[in-house]
Amino acid sequence: MLNRTLEKTSLVEREAAKLFDKIGYLETSLKDVSKASKLSKGGIYHYFSNKHEILFSIINNYLDHLLEGLEDDLKKIDDLSSKIEFIVFRHLQMYNKKSPEAKATLIYSRNLPSKYFKIIAKKQKQYAQVLTDILEEFFKDADGIKKEKAKAISYSLFGMCNSIMYWYDPKGKVTLEELSRIIYDIFMKGVSGYRNHISAK
Amino acid sequence: MLNRTLEKTSLVEREAAKLFDKIGYLETSLKDVSKASKLSKGGIYHYFSNKHEILFSIINNYLDHLLEGLEDDLKKIDDLSSKIEFIVFRHLQMYNKKSPEAKATLIYSRNLPSKYFKIIAKKQKQYAQVLTDILEEFFKDADGIKKEKAKAISYSLFGMCNSIMYWYDPKGKVTLEELSRIIYDIFMKGVSGYRNHISAK
Repeated sequence: MLNRTLEKTSLVEREAAKLFDKIGYLETSLKDVSKASKLSKGGIYHYFSNKHEILFSIINNYLDHLLEGLEDDLKKIDDLSSKIEFIVFRHLQMYNKKSPEAKATLIYSRNLPSKYFKIIAKKQKQYAQVLTDILEEFFKDADGIKKEKAKAISYSLFGMCNSIMYWYDPKGKVTLEELSRIIYDIFMKGVSGYRNHISAK
Repeated sequence: MLNRTLEKTSLVEREAAKLFDKIGYLETSLKDVSKASKLSKGGIYHYFSNKHEILFSIINNYLDHLLEGLEDDLKKIDDLSSKIEFIVFRHLQMYNKKSPEAKATLIYSRNLPSKYFKIIAKKQKQYAQVLTDILEEFFKDADGIKKEKAKAISYSLFGMCNSIMYWYDPKGKVTLEELSRIIYDIFMKGVSGYRNHISAK
């Protein structure tokens, strides 16, 4: 019974995320979701009270997916640049695998009523903090860096990664692998240069 | 007469952008906008048919503001890295000066009905293209770079800059000047390293 519920809610979320991506969150009606998921509107209302709840569930699950196992996997990696490389490649792979859900997260989080948004924002912070901690460690040789600067740099790396939502075409000329490599190379050469620069001061 | 109209529409847009930032686009009613701008609802309807039109106008004006004079100013700068530096500092200064409008652009563009969104998307592309052209030029020494890669790198720099919307606090410990410097330093050291790397291949 629990499995069937999970199956149905996953189906609704998946079809809804695809519609939000294709025609927009505001333009998507529960009727559209019902048609795409081949469930009656009553069937959908059995699991979700309204469109906000579907959106919240999509984003919340996507963030859980991003957080799941991340810290354990990072513990198995020794050096800091390999940890950063792991985060960049993993972040973009997950985006690619669940691109409608990732886009819903990036584009529509702020459409959520504030009680929902707070839960989301907390998880986003938790995710960014993992990289902030690594960066603080990375800058330790250079007499350290202010916590706030490490945070700014952490968000700017995710900003680089997430910018793909504006232009990335899975059928285009740049593969996701190439893109992850470019972003990692530019960022890593950039922060290494920046670390040398501040430690030389 | 035209001036008075401009004054009133600017007032409505400014107050609406502040409300969208504070309580969210969906949660803001025309009644809230009317209260904040001290105009009757009828007065607002005289200029805008609905909330979408206000949002469109805010974003459209902000993008015009970003584009205005940009290419002329860049022509006056000789070397490519100074051009990139100019773009980063200018982008963040404008964000800071009109932060509610900038946030409306970054967060709510995709809430616009598609006929409006198309106009916005075209201007966003035009803006990113300015940097893409500079980057293509920058990579020329290294046997060039595919157009698509230059575009990816251009968007990733704006991604770094725009990530400030998730964490930046004007009263916080990192100033906008420092932040622009960090982003420019990391990006410039990064792309220079990347250029050496591909030309050494």
